[in-house]
Amino acid sequence: MAAAAVALSNGSGGGGDSKAEFAEIYSRLKEEMLEDPAFEFTDESLQWIERMLDYNVLGGKCNRGLSVIDSYKTLKGVDVLRKEETFLACTLGWCIEWLQAYFLVLDDIMDNSQTRRGQPCWFRVPQVGLIAVNDGIILRNHISRILQRHFRGKPYYVDLIDLFNEVEFKTASGQLLDLITTHEGEKDLTKYNLNVHRRIVQYKTAYYSFYLPVACALLLSGENLDNFGDVKNILVEMGTYFQVQDDYLDCFGDPESIGKIGTDIEDYKCSWLVVQALEHADESQKGILLENYGKSDPESVAKVKDLYKELDLETAFHKYERESYNKLIADIEAQPSKAVQKVLMSFLEKIYKRQK
Amino acid sequence: MAAAAVALSNGSGGGGDSKAEFAEIYSRLKEEMLEDPAFEFTDESLQWIERMLDYNVLGGKCNRGLSVIDSYKTLKGVDVLRKEETFLACTLGWCIEWLQAYFLVLDDIMDNSQTRRGQPCWFRVPQVGLIAVNDGIILRNHISRILQRHFRGKPYYVDLIDLFNEVEFKTASGQLLDLITTHEGEKDLTKYNLNVHRRIVQYKTAYYSFYLPVACALLLSGENLDNFGDVKNILVEMGTYFQVQDDYLDCFGDPESIGKIGTDIEDYKCSWLVVQALEHADESQKGILLENYGKSDPESVAKVKDLYKELDLETAFHKYERESYNKLIADIEAQPSKAVQKVLMSFLEKIYKRQK
Repeated sequence: MAAAAVALSNGSGGGGDSKAEFAEIYSRLKEEMLEDPAFEFTDESLQWIERMLDYNVLGGKCNRGLSVIDSYKTLKGVDVLRKEETFLACTLGWCIEWLQAYFLVLDDIMDNSQTRRGQPCWFRVPQVGLIAVNDGIILRNHISRILQRHFRGKPYYVDLIDLFNEVEFKTASGQLLDLITTHEGEKDLTKYNLNVHRRIVQYKTAYYSFYLPVACALLLSGENLDNFGDVKNILVEMGTYFQVQDDYLDCFGDPESIGKIGTDIEDYKCSWLVVQALEHADESQKGILLENYGKSDPESVAKVKDLYKELDLETAFHKYERESYNKLIADIEAQPSKAVQKVLMSFLEKIYKRQK
Repeated sequence: MAAAAVALSNGSGGGGDSKAEFAEIYSRLKEEMLEDPAFEFTDESLQWIERMLDYNVLGGKCNRGLSVIDSYKTLKGVDVLRKEETFLACTLGWCIEWLQAYFLVLDDIMDNSQTRRGQPCWFRVPQVGLIAVNDGIILRNHISRILQRHFRGKPYYVDLIDLFNEVEFKTASGQLLDLITTHEGEKDLTKYNLNVHRRIVQYKTAYYSFYLPVACALLLSGENLDNFGDVKNILVEMGTYFQVQDDYLDCFGDPESIGKIGTDIEDYKCSWLVVQALEHADESQKGILLENYGKSDPESVAKVKDLYKELDLETAFHKYERESYNKLIADIEAQPSKAVQKVLMSFLEKIYKRQK
C-alpha cells in the first residue's frame, strides 16, 4: 500500500487551542538540540541540523503529535492543562513528529521517492544526498535526547523509552516485510495475500500512528500500559482500517479530494484491493492481474481497474468498513473507563467514512 | 581520516578463554532476535534477518566486544567469572558489536564503499541494495531489544540505555561533521584543521570504540559512571591517538603489515597528516597541497607524499606519539583504583607503537 498520509482533521479535542500551544514548543526543543552539550558543534553543523529539522520535522499536519495533547486532556477530563503538563504533552507529541520525520527521510531514500509534503524529498536537496541517512539517525537520536532531558526523573521514564523502542522496532520490522515482499525486480504476486497485507499495515503504520500517541497520553496520566492491551488492539485495528481506506481511495477516491492521483497499481503496491482481487479471482481473472499489475501504461491500469469493478471490490470495501466500524464500536463500549472510551471514539470519528 | 579498522591484538586479559565464551553467546542472542514476540515474522523475513546478522555482525575481530569481558574481569580482580556474569558481559560485548555493524552498514552506503572485512559491503549484495538502510535500523533496534530482555530489572538499566544512546548520538554527530566537512564536490582544504580533525576522530570513533566497552564493564561492576569522568577522558584520548596512528600508517605504514594500500590522499580524507601539513606549510607548499590533494594520479600522490617528508611529518608524528603516551601514563597513574589503572594500561599496551 501507499504510505498513508494521515489526514485526520484535528480540533475535536478539548477547549484549549492545542495547535498554538503545540507549535510554540517546537522552537524550544530545537534550540535545546542545538545546544546539546554532548557534542561540540561547529557553526556549519549547527546550520545543517537546524535546516534539516525545519525541513523534515515541520510541514506535516502534526495529527499524531496533536493527538497526544487531546488524548491527555480527555483522560484527565479537563479542557485546559497546567503549564508543565502542556509542555510535557507537547514534548511527547513532538517526539512522535520527530519519529515520523525519521521514518519518512529514510523511507523516501529506500523508495527512491521524488517529493514529500509538497517539496523535494530531503535526500534530493542539493548537497544532501546520502548524508540524509545520517540525518535520519540524528532525528532518531534527538528523541532519546529529548526524553532524557525532560523525563529522566519521572517514574515512567523507563516505560517511555521501552515504548518508543518497541514501536520503532515494530515499524522497522513492518518496513522490512514491505520491502522484501514488494521487492522491485522480482515481481511475484503470489507473495501478496491478506495476511501479509495485514502484517505490513499493522506493524509499519498502525502502531506508531495510532497506538503510540494514546500510549504516551496514558503514561503521562500515570497509567501502566500493561493494563491497556485492549486499547492497543483497538487502536491497531483502527490504524489497519485507516490504511485499507487509503488503499481504497487511491483507486476509487476523487483525486480532487485526496489531493493526488493514485498510482498503487502502476507501483505494484501490496494494496488491500489487489489482495482482495487475488482472493476472489478465478484462474482467468488471476491471469489478467499477473499480466497487467505493476505496469504503467494506461491500458494495463484500466484492465486492472475494470477487474476490480467486475469483482465488485467497492461493495467488498464498504462491507469491510461497516463490519470493522461495528466491531470497533462494540469493543470501545466494552471499555470500563468512560474517558478511555471518549479518547477512542474521538479517533474513530476522525477517520470513519472519510473521503480524503 | 579512514575509518579505523581497530586491530587491537586480544588475549592479554584474564585467564579464562574470553574468545570461546564470547562466540557461544552470539547464537543465543541471534535466536532470541528471531523469536522476538514483538513482531510476527514470515519465513522470508526470518531468513533475511538471520543472513543479515551473520553477514554484518560477524566477520570482525570483536576487539570492542571482547574488551568488555576482559575489563570486567580486571575490575573484579578475577580470572574466571561466574556463568551469569559471563553471560551478561558477553551480551554487552555483543551489543557493541551490533552497534559497530549498524554504523558500518550505514557508513558504507554513505561512503559508497566497495568492500568491508574482505567481502562486498552489505548494500552491494544482490537483492539487498538500499534495504540495507532499514537493516541498519534493525541492527540498532536489536540492541534495545537485547538490553530490555536481559537488563530490564537491573538497577543500572536506565544508565545502560542512556549510555548507549549518548554514545550513539556522539558517533552520529561526529559522522555528520565528517560528512559535511569532507563533502565530495566542494573540495575545500581550508575547512581542514587540527580542531576539526580532533572533533571528528573523537566523536566518530573514540567514544564507541574505547570508552563504551569500559563504561559497560563499570556499569556491570555496579559503578556510577559520573565518578569516572577522568577514565572517559583518558579512553577518548587513547581513541584519538589510535586514529592518528591509523592516519599515519595509511601513508607511512608497510602495506604488507597493515593489510591494505592506503588511499587517504586520493580520497581527500581529513587525515592527521594533511592537517599537520596545512599547519606547517608556507604559502608555496600550501599551493602544492591545494593543487594535488584528492587526486588519484600517482604523480599528484607522490607530490603530496614528498611534501609530507619535506615537512618531516614522520618526526612530528613520533613526537605526538611520545607526548601522548607520556601524558596517558601520567593520567593513568593518577587514577585512585589499581584495577582501573590495570584496565587502562591493558588498552594502552595494545595500541602503543603498533605497526598494523
